[in-house]
Amino acid sequence: MPPRVYLAGPDVFFPEPLLWAAGKKTICDRHGLIGVTPLDDVPDEPAEWGALPFWRRIALRNEAHIKSCQGLIANLTPFRGPSADVGTVYEVGFARALGLLIFGYATTTEPFLPRTLKALGGDARSRDDGTWRDADGLLVEQFGLFDNLMIEGGIAGSGGALITGDAGRWDDLALFERCVIAATKHFSPTG
Amino acid sequence: MPPRVYLAGPDVFFPEPLLWAAGKKTICDRHGLIGVTPLDDVPDEPAEWGALPFWRRIALRNEAHIKSCQGLIANLTPFRGPSADVGTVYEVGFARALGLLIFGYATTTEPFLPRTLKALGGDARSRDDGTWRDADGLLVEQFGLFDNLMIEGGIAGSGGALITGDAGRWDDLALFERCVIAATKHFSPTG
Repeated sequence: MPPRVYLAGPDVFFPEPLLWAAGKKTICDRHGLIGVTPLDDVPDEPAEWGALPFWRRIALRNEAHIKSCQGLIANLTPFRGPSADVGTVYEVGFARALGLLIFGYATTTEPFLPRTLKALGGDARSRDDGTWRDADGLLVEQFGLFDNLMIEGGIAGSGGALITGDAGRWDDLALFERCVIAATKHFSPTG
Repeated sequence: MPPRVYLAGPDVFFPEPLLWAAGKKTICDRHGLIGVTPLDDVPDEPAEWGALPFWRRIALRNEAHIKSCQGLIANLTPFRGPSADVGTVYEVGFARALGLLIFGYATTTEPFLPRTLKALGGDARSRDDGTWRDADGLLVEQFGLFDNLMIEGGIAGSGGALITGDAGRWDDLALFERCVIAATKHFSPTG
């Protein structure tokens, strides 16, 4: 049975989510992985989920999908702010607690600090001690990372990696494919 | 042994994080819970963590703290964008996979949709089908929720709740205390 990887990302918000899902699944298949998306059905979905509001069913389905997988590949491209999509990051944390192998990618290489300062505009202030703070006095993270340390800590702790590149396009799949290939090597180290 | 609850939130970025932590811990103690913060030491921290970069130690410590708890209370006030802090949301997902009871609070009641449209400024476009999309064509979530559905789905699935109010201040602790009291009732339903 090929390893199953959950495909997390705000890509479900694309104009053509089914096409997107099919494209990513094809890449997984080409490299010997089964790509599982939020758009897939959940086998043996509990009957009681049918009585829940649709958004709760989606959340439960995504959690069930992640539980059925051995790995997760997340699109961590900054989304409507300096950080990744929170729904995706929730799933990264969820997968990490279950011990999945986690890879992430982003279609920009700009680090977290300059990205955050740009988003804060003129509101960020530097202090004599070298730190940056926003208008509310809250610190800006300065570890030289790509995003919040929990995300990259979880990826590193899982044995995976974060791959970034200046693709510039949301729907570019070259970086995704690099994650798939790296995941394959982890699952079959002698292959 | 009183139930342990992990206190997640961007509050660690406050100018006086130790004071903040002490204030929240005092409230937990008053209601019979032990508040655990990212600033606490991890008992029996593995020696090999000492060789890791500091940001990785922080991530591993926070994960260890969450594993030692029965509940989590998250400050989900929108942070540098329309959504909550991604580090906090990672921890909510992590806690959910481990089966913790999860509560969240936010110091604004403005729902996700108007908040997102405001953040997108003039870039959001409405379509004839009633949906909103950003400049890249990506859908804006419209479930009438407070934030991304994974967050609220996880909270609801855990048995917890999201409590919002227009406190207007990051350091207001009244909403936090309401979460503590609600959590206490869950842990001691007959108390």
